[in-house]
Amino acid sequence: MAEADPATLGHEAAAMIEELARLSSEPDRVTRLYLSPAHRQAADLTARMMREAGLTVSEDALGTVRGRLAATAPSPSNRRLLVGSHIDTVIDAGKYDGVLGVICGILAAREIVRRGIEVPFAVDVLAFGDEEGVRFPTTLLSSAAVAGHASAATLQAADADGVTVAEALRSFGGDPDRLSDCADDPGEVIGYLEVHIEQGPVLERQGLPLGVVTAIAGAARFKVSVTGEAGHAGTVPMAMRRDALAAAAELVLAIEETARGGAPHGLVATVGQLEVKPGAVNVIPAEVTFSLDVRAAEDGQRRDAVDRIDSAAREIAARRGVAIAMRRYHEVATRPCASWLQDTGAEALTRLGIEPLRLMSGAGHDGQAMSELCDIGMLFVRCRGGISHNPLESVTVEDMGLAVEALVQWIKAVARNERMFR
Amino acid sequence: MAEADPATLGHEAAAMIEELARLSSEPDRVTRLYLSPAHRQAADLTARMMREAGLTVSEDALGTVRGRLAATAPSPSNRRLLVGSHIDTVIDAGKYDGVLGVICGILAAREIVRRGIEVPFAVDVLAFGDEEGVRFPTTLLSSAAVAGHASAATLQAADADGVTVAEALRSFGGDPDRLSDCADDPGEVIGYLEVHIEQGPVLERQGLPLGVVTAIAGAARFKVSVTGEAGHAGTVPMAMRRDALAAAAELVLAIEETARGGAPHGLVATVGQLEVKPGAVNVIPAEVTFSLDVRAAEDGQRRDAVDRIDSAAREIAARRGVAIAMRRYHEVATRPCASWLQDTGAEALTRLGIEPLRLMSGAGHDGQAMSELCDIGMLFVRCRGGISHNPLESVTVEDMGLAVEALVQWIKAVARNERMFR
Repeated sequence: MAEADPATLGHEAAAMIEELARLSSEPDRVTRLYLSPAHRQAADLTARMMREAGLTVSEDALGTVRGRLAATAPSPSNRRLLVGSHIDTVIDAGKYDGVLGVICGILAAREIVRRGIEVPFAVDVLAFGDEEGVRFPTTLLSSAAVAGHASAATLQAADADGVTVAEALRSFGGDPDRLSDCADDPGEVIGYLEVHIEQGPVLERQGLPLGVVTAIAGAARFKVSVTGEAGHAGTVPMAMRRDALAAAAELVLAIEETARGGAPHGLVATVGQLEVKPGAVNVIPAEVTFSLDVRAAEDGQRRDAVDRIDSAAREIAARRGVAIAMRRYHEVATRPCASWLQDTGAEALTRLGIEPLRLMSGAGHDGQAMSELCDIGMLFVRCRGGISHNPLESVTVEDMGLAVEALVQWIKAVARNERMFR
Repeated sequence: MAEADPATLGHEAAAMIEELARLSSEPDRVTRLYLSPAHRQAADLTARMMREAGLTVSEDALGTVRGRLAATAPSPSNRRLLVGSHIDTVIDAGKYDGVLGVICGILAAREIVRRGIEVPFAVDVLAFGDEEGVRFPTTLLSSAAVAGHASAATLQAADADGVTVAEALRSFGGDPDRLSDCADDPGEVIGYLEVHIEQGPVLERQGLPLGVVTAIAGAARFKVSVTGEAGHAGTVPMAMRRDALAAAAELVLAIEETARGGAPHGLVATVGQLEVKPGAVNVIPAEVTFSLDVRAAEDGQRRDAVDRIDSAAREIAARRGVAIAMRRYHEVATRPCASWLQDTGAEALTRLGIEPLRLMSGAGHDGQAMSELCDIGMLFVRCRGGISHNPLESVTVEDMGLAVEALVQWIKAVARNERMFR
């Protein structure tokens, strides 16, 4: 059977996404936290959609819904390809973050059947429940469970009302005692593919509907403090000042320059918070504290950037006679997308006539947890203005259709790769 | 009679200053606001000290105490030299700010009599009451009255308890209806000399006890706002950012560089307050607002500096695609010290073997108001660490002695100048 018109697939995806968006804990806005009644409804609707697409549905002990498409061609092994994303949301969310990837997986599986595409492995479409990490002080718990590295202790974490994950799971219909049953066998998994909205402006600016993700960026966060000397704004000559803000300004620019010197879509650094003390119009700043967030597509690149920033800080401190301290309080390693999954993803885009731009993901995704289980790959979908975590989040129908079609082509490319190299 | 030992004069000054420091509205710290009971006590003590020094005392309608030393040599006219400073303080003040200048005036007048120095004009020592502007929303009111440009409307300004200046004046023993009687006749005044602690670090760093003030710096204050675009710290590449903080950092450094490019003791610029919005670790700053305070020894230099900063702002805004607005909300003109009073002050220091460093005053003084009446001149006295408006304010006994002696020499130099050129 011929390929479907992307516009038709786009309208189908849009309708399914609208249906899911109606399931919310709050009227007039989308809020669907992990293990909430709205999440229960969304899991059930997702299961129904999976069944309608011809998938065999199960739900694991942590609430992840799985729709299985059996291999459509003779399979040399019992292996399967995982495709997924999440159906939980932030508070007052957009409709596409997470949900789009699950719907693309369902429609792609259906298209494989409908078009008689030969795939020599099962395709499991996964709908995770805890990607946003809003309700409990945990995140990626459901995908970590599938990847086999969720900790039982995490189930005792409680939400703001004192309800633990374990308690919420029982109300949801899950089973905290069967956590280990969630885990897939690494030997049986080919890889994990995820389609997700970009949540950034790159594809839109480049005029591209889709892009290939190189890595889920690792991140390091620091609290930086600059200590100089207070003084009267009128009576201390410039040459006698040890102005903490001027020193901090130099460091902010050194941070920006360091990040600009990295790969165009591979390194970012941001100073988002900055405070000045004592903070009076007529007093030379004595102390400045600011936040630093560094993300990179490679751990080495991130570490190099931090080293370069640290050197700049030492040089500025010595030259200006101020003290600069950088305290790291958070660090997450980069999760690279497997090059063969990047290449097959790029092949899929090329088949659709889309230039396969490669870009990193600066935000976190279930793939981070899944990378402990298997190779991961991601495709990004253009979203309007790069806006996400906001009701203004928007993806065109056309782009949704292209995303479904790209996923079909990607699975075909993986199948060709499987046939050739395994 | 021979010149006194500066150490002896210093000990006398120190004792008088200690006596005044005991007069406070608060136990254990010095707080003496305009027209408070503590100010009344200080005015009375100052009057007694003036009388003991041989001066004829009066108090004007706004509480300024005046001790007159009649000319000690045949006078060609009815002219007089004014010497003074203020006896009000900030809250939790030091002992020297203002008071030192009044005491130097009293002791210098006494020394003129004691040593039989011939001065062909009267010397009026003035103790002003409203220099700090802490109690009422007004400042330099008492010196403005002497200079003849205080506005009657100002007398209706009220303190935090709703007490107006006029009401407080009546309790103090003054007379708001006789405001205009406070004014000196410009034709009768030779000039106004003031000795004051530096309130900055220059003299200490240069190893000098005293210095000659070139001007009371004018000041301009601005609120600067930089508007960029918010974005996700992970997903917006460096090249696509319009980071308000990075732009502000560039401008902060341009401001510093502009001020550094000015005369060493003639131009300062300070960013003392800075706020970042939205101010989250993982969000690119959308808006930064900061304060800018520019002070210079010449109005032209200040305006040039502001122009240069404004040009830098335009260049940064255009290059970075952000909007920068500078709103001036305060401006005070520079009050230059008369060159003949600077020269006679320098002559006095040279006679004492002190290199006459010239420096601007970045803080405000009664001289600003007095400059509307007559030529002004100021000498600065070294204070420890440049600290002022703080109980840690400190001046050595030796330096106080030198300050008294320098004022004596300065008055002599003015007398020579008067003799020669008038």
